[in-house]
Amino acid sequence: MKMPMSAALLTDHYELTMLEAALGSGAAHRRAVFEVFARHLPQGRRYGVVAGTGRVLDALEDFTFGEQEIEFLRRARVVDERTLDYLAGYRFSGDVHGYAEGECYFPGSPIMVVDGTFAEAVLLETLILSILNHDSAVASAASRMVRAAGERPIIEMGSRRTHEAAAVAAARAAYVAGFGSTSNLMAGRLYGVPTAGTAAHAFTLLHDSEHDAFQAQLDFLGTDTTLLVDTYDVAKAVRTAVELAGPRLGAVRIDSGDLRAVAHEVRDMLDGLGATGTRVVVTGDLDEYAIAALAAAPVDGYGVGTSVVTGSGAPTASLVYKLVAREDSGGTLRPVAKRSVGKPSRGGRKTAFRTLEDGVATCELVSVLPDSPVTDSPVPGSTVPGSPVPGSPAPAGTRPLLRPLVRGGAVVGREPLAEARERHRASVAELPKDAHHLSPGDAAVPTVFT
Amino acid sequence: MKMPMSAALLTDHYELTMLEAALGSGAAHRRAVFEVFARHLPQGRRYGVVAGTGRVLDALEDFTFGEQEIEFLRRARVVDERTLDYLAGYRFSGDVHGYAEGECYFPGSPIMVVDGTFAEAVLLETLILSILNHDSAVASAASRMVRAAGERPIIEMGSRRTHEAAAVAAARAAYVAGFGSTSNLMAGRLYGVPTAGTAAHAFTLLHDSEHDAFQAQLDFLGTDTTLLVDTYDVAKAVRTAVELAGPRLGAVRIDSGDLRAVAHEVRDMLDGLGATGTRVVVTGDLDEYAIAALAAAPVDGYGVGTSVVTGSGAPTASLVYKLVAREDSGGTLRPVAKRSVGKPSRGGRKTAFRTLEDGVATCELVSVLPDSPVTDSPVPGSTVPGSPVPGSPAPAGTRPLLRPLVRGGAVVGREPLAEARERHRASVAELPKDAHHLSPGDAAVPTVFT
Repeated sequence: MKMPMSAALLTDHYELTMLEAALGSGAAHRRAVFEVFARHLPQGRRYGVVAGTGRVLDALEDFTFGEQEIEFLRRARVVDERTLDYLAGYRFSGDVHGYAEGECYFPGSPIMVVDGTFAEAVLLETLILSILNHDSAVASAASRMVRAAGERPIIEMGSRRTHEAAAVAAARAAYVAGFGSTSNLMAGRLYGVPTAGTAAHAFTLLHDSEHDAFQAQLDFLGTDTTLLVDTYDVAKAVRTAVELAGPRLGAVRIDSGDLRAVAHEVRDMLDGLGATGTRVVVTGDLDEYAIAALAAAPVDGYGVGTSVVTGSGAPTASLVYKLVAREDSGGTLRPVAKRSVGKPSRGGRKTAFRTLEDGVATCELVSVLPDSPVTDSPVPGSTVPGSPVPGSPAPAGTRPLLRPLVRGGAVVGREPLAEARERHRASVAELPKDAHHLSPGDAAVPTVFT
Repeated sequence: MKMPMSAALLTDHYELTMLEAALGSGAAHRRAVFEVFARHLPQGRRYGVVAGTGRVLDALEDFTFGEQEIEFLRRARVVDERTLDYLAGYRFSGDVHGYAEGECYFPGSPIMVVDGTFAEAVLLETLILSILNHDSAVASAASRMVRAAGERPIIEMGSRRTHEAAAVAAARAAYVAGFGSTSNLMAGRLYGVPTAGTAAHAFTLLHDSEHDAFQAQLDFLGTDTTLLVDTYDVAKAVRTAVELAGPRLGAVRIDSGDLRAVAHEVRDMLDGLGATGTRVVVTGDLDEYAIAALAAAPVDGYGVGTSVVTGSGAPTASLVYKLVAREDSGGTLRPVAKRSVGKPSRGGRKTAFRTLEDGVATCELVSVLPDSPVTDSPVPGSTVPGSPVPGSPAPAGTRPLLRPLVRGGAVVGREPLAEARERHRASVAELPKDAHHLSPGDAAVPTVFT
């Protein structure tokens, strides 16, 4: 954690060389609109989950080039002095609109729209993508697990399987998607995510016997604690646990073996010993499929590690940040798009709505806004005549998806994490039933461009 | 990057509750030895690469509980006051041995051995695993790509596809494994990794024509720059590029399409235009397999993004941190091991050697050290009679793998990153030929426990 506080160098070298050349050509100060979107959802997923928005806003406020950063760039000869002068005074002064955190998204959804000069907007590409790609990948996987778990709570416990700072963001993203708590203390400290945990196998091995270990845990963590029962022999451990704790033991945890079979055995044993209120928690290489397969087993809670922090097979959301419109020499904002084979982009500033029928999502409506003089269109969709303003009345039967996050460089879209979590609950509840199939398939609703 | 400077909360809740209960039972101060190892290599890989060792040493020095951390733990009621008192005075005072950074490893290799009281060693589990699991996953994938690329250089450019801080560590790990440079500026600033990059499609789209964009780039970044030629039409772009830059153009980059076919076309065009020295760089969803498939194509360099930062299908190295020995009530260090189904551990402190025949690695020799009085064995393998000291003469035909990293809480194993990079080059060169098959198979050398 020797990371300096400015986020400005969490950036690709080429953003700065592009800036240098564009300052040279004069094009750097052209108005430019960049859009974050996914070309497709990974692995035939039915929907994605926007996460990291709040972290982008935090990072944007830290995105300044201080003396140390400038000195590094000078010493490493990354860019010339004119560019260093520009960077020393850099402060994003444009606008950002985006899908609110926790919202579901689909291929082509304009998840975030950054509107400023080319110079100020291009510099943000790497950082914005890093945050949204990581956090959305975790939230998208987590949401499927939450759905598979039904009413049963899930603890996120994958910190040890991912980069130490990514672990904190992963805990936050999983919480947005509906996980109940995390093992990660920093996520508790920074984001208020509830933290949980009791003991590992090492605690049992440390003591002279499992009996001694359980006794110590009960003495100092209380009867409501969770005892880990698979260090040696599960049946023996369960008997010892209830013998020492009595029928009010909080929970037992199983971390290995055929979890379905062992959960049944342990539940029967607990009931037979009178510990009918003692919960059974299972952990150990769980993902959404394993959780779904345990739906009929007597399990009261899950702990998920590796699979959630690594996006369950899709560790990045594959979001891209593409220039979709820029000012021409006449001062008009014009759509632009590349034509690269297999990776075309769709030009033009966009706004987006979700069409609903009887409360069920039916369509992701993405409207390309017309060309307009730059002076008439300070933010995407906000003042061009006839096009809908984000947050203003949406077309009948739809709700607007873009909301202001930054205005004139000032963050306006910050919200408590609980709101993102509640928004996700509502957004996912609105999806058609097919959205919850775990098998690969098409996006739950089609994206229609107009 | 609102991350506070102490690494102490990058830790799982249960490490602290275990500490609380062990302080209660008195077992917290027993001498304990934890070992980091992999039960298996992911996806039938032939070898793994240790990376992150240097970052572990940095993090260890930051691992202290300051007032802010203690106050959070008190407010969140994570542990009791006695435990908070212990944490407030916490400073790791034990020993750490480990494989040197860049070294290859195999299933069961004791990559890192942490030796201290249970209290001080258990707290480090999450942080050590986070760092080693992430960095080793990236380095292990990167090493395969470097081998597939032969003499051709690879730029790491995946920052945007992973968490913003993980991106920095990924750039560092890929460099250890032999990548030539990174797009990530922070990795340049923090670790001295060479940075590289010129322009994206947005730069071309920003200008009124590709001609204008190329001219601007050449004017301000110089003729030796790399022009991106697939924004519109590759053949037209190559002609424009050479027309503007002349035959001394540094390179062209292709980011889409059938890279093999396009590379041939572009090479032919460049040669036809007299630009025989202009390099062809390819990027776009490359992994070790795609790189290998381009071996016969006229390519001069690769840029790799998503696949390297996400471990090319194995985003975590699945390393675990297990208690393998601890002091008993009589003051003797005894092996301990769990017997969980499918996840057994192998008790006892260990040391490790690589057996070589004619300079080729043939075996990973892991020796379990005998029980011994705690007073006679301050560090694993160092003073127990008859067992080899790390760094001391190894058995004939072997070289020792464990080296001191921390002694009595003081870091002694820090080294320049270039040494880890060079060590990896030498370590991988020593492996038998089969190690370089990209297809799934057994570990390149067997691990033998004695």
